[in-house]
Amino acid sequence: MKKFEEKTIHSEPIFKGKVISVKVDDVILPNGNESKREIVNHPGAVAIIPITDDGKIILVEQYRKALERSIIEIPAGKLEKGEAPETTARRELEEETGYGCHELTYIQSFATSPGFADEVIHLYAAKQLFTIEDKADLDEDEFVSLMEVTLEEAEKMVQEQKIYDAKTAFAILWLKLEQSK
Amino acid sequence: MKKFEEKTIHSEPIFKGKVISVKVDDVILPNGNESKREIVNHPGAVAIIPITDDGKIILVEQYRKALERSIIEIPAGKLEKGEAPETTARRELEEETGYGCHELTYIQSFATSPGFADEVIHLYAAKQLFTIEDKADLDEDEFVSLMEVTLEEAEKMVQEQKIYDAKTAFAILWLKLEQSK
Repeated sequence: MKKFEEKTIHSEPIFKGKVISVKVDDVILPNGNESKREIVNHPGAVAIIPITDDGKIILVEQYRKALERSIIEIPAGKLEKGEAPETTARRELEEETGYGCHELTYIQSFATSPGFADEVIHLYAAKQLFTIEDKADLDEDEFVSLMEVTLEEAEKMVQEQKIYDAKTAFAILWLKLEQSK
Repeated sequence: MKKFEEKTIHSEPIFKGKVISVKVDDVILPNGNESKREIVNHPGAVAIIPITDDGKIILVEQYRKALERSIIEIPAGKLEKGEAPETTARRELEEETGYGCHELTYIQSFATSPGFADEVIHLYAAKQLFTIEDKADLDEDEFVSLMEVTLEEAEKMVQEQKIYDAKTAFAILWLKLEQSK
C-alpha cells in the first residue's frame, strides 16, 4: 500500500550500530513539498506469550537502559540474520524462561513505533510448556528474573506500572479474551 | 524499580534531530562487565481510540516512511514540550479526525520499543464525539485519510495486514473486551 507515498530524494546515513542504524531521508510529500524523515532501522523481533497448563502467564523482569528502569515483559528478542521468526521465538523462550513448548501459535505482527522506526514484532503464544534440562544461555549482557502470574496479577502490575510495555499490554488483553472463551 | 541496574560510565551523543535523538551509553552490567547500549530518545506520544455512538472505531490511514508503506492506525501524535498528554490527545483527535469528544478516558501508558527507545504512548478512549466546525489543521507534512469501521472490519484489516501497528492492535482487543461487556 503506497497511499500518500513519500518519495526519497536523498538518504543520509547517520549511525550504524550493533543493533540499530539511523538515517535521515529527504522526501517529496504528496503535495510536492519537501520534508525530512528521521528513521531508525532495526532487525525486528519476536515476542512470546508463554501460558502454563493452569492458565498463568510467564513474565520476565529486566533493566531497560532506554527507560532507565526495570520493567516486566513477556519474553522477547531480536531476530538474527536469516533466522525464521518461529525459530527465534523458540530460542528466546528457552533462553529467557528455560521452557520449551509443544504448541507455538502465531498471533500477529505489528510495528512498534511506525513514526520513526521500522521495528516489527512477530507475536506468538506458547502452550504445553516443558522444562528444558540443559537450556541455552542468555546473551552475555542479559539479566532477567522470571515470574509466573495469573491474569488478575498481571492486570494489577499494569495498574502499578510494573508492566509498562506495548507488547505485554497487548498480551494481557489477548489472554483475557482467551480465558473468557 | 532499578533491579539489574546498568550504570552509565559514558554517554556519547550521536544525533540530535527534530523528532528523535540518538546516543550510545557505555554501561556497567550487574555482573561488573562493560557493554554498550544504543538508545533513541523520543518526546513521547498519545494515541486515541475514537468510538462512535454506534460502537464503530475511527481509523486514519497514512504513509509511514520508516516502513515504506501506508498503514491504518488509531489517531496519534507526539507530545509537544510541556503539554499535558490529555491536551495532546484532544488536539490530535481534532486535527486528524475533525472530531471533539465529550468523554475522554485514560486507559494506560506503555513503552513501544523498550529495547532501544524511550518512547512512551499514553492511550485514551474518546466517546460522545461531535464534529468541530472549524477544526485545527494537520501539520504541514501530514496526509491522512479517515475511515469508520466496525470491530469485525478492523479485525479483518489485521488479518490482511492493513493494520500493522502495536497501539492499534491493542486498541482492537480493548474494543473487543469493551463490546463483550
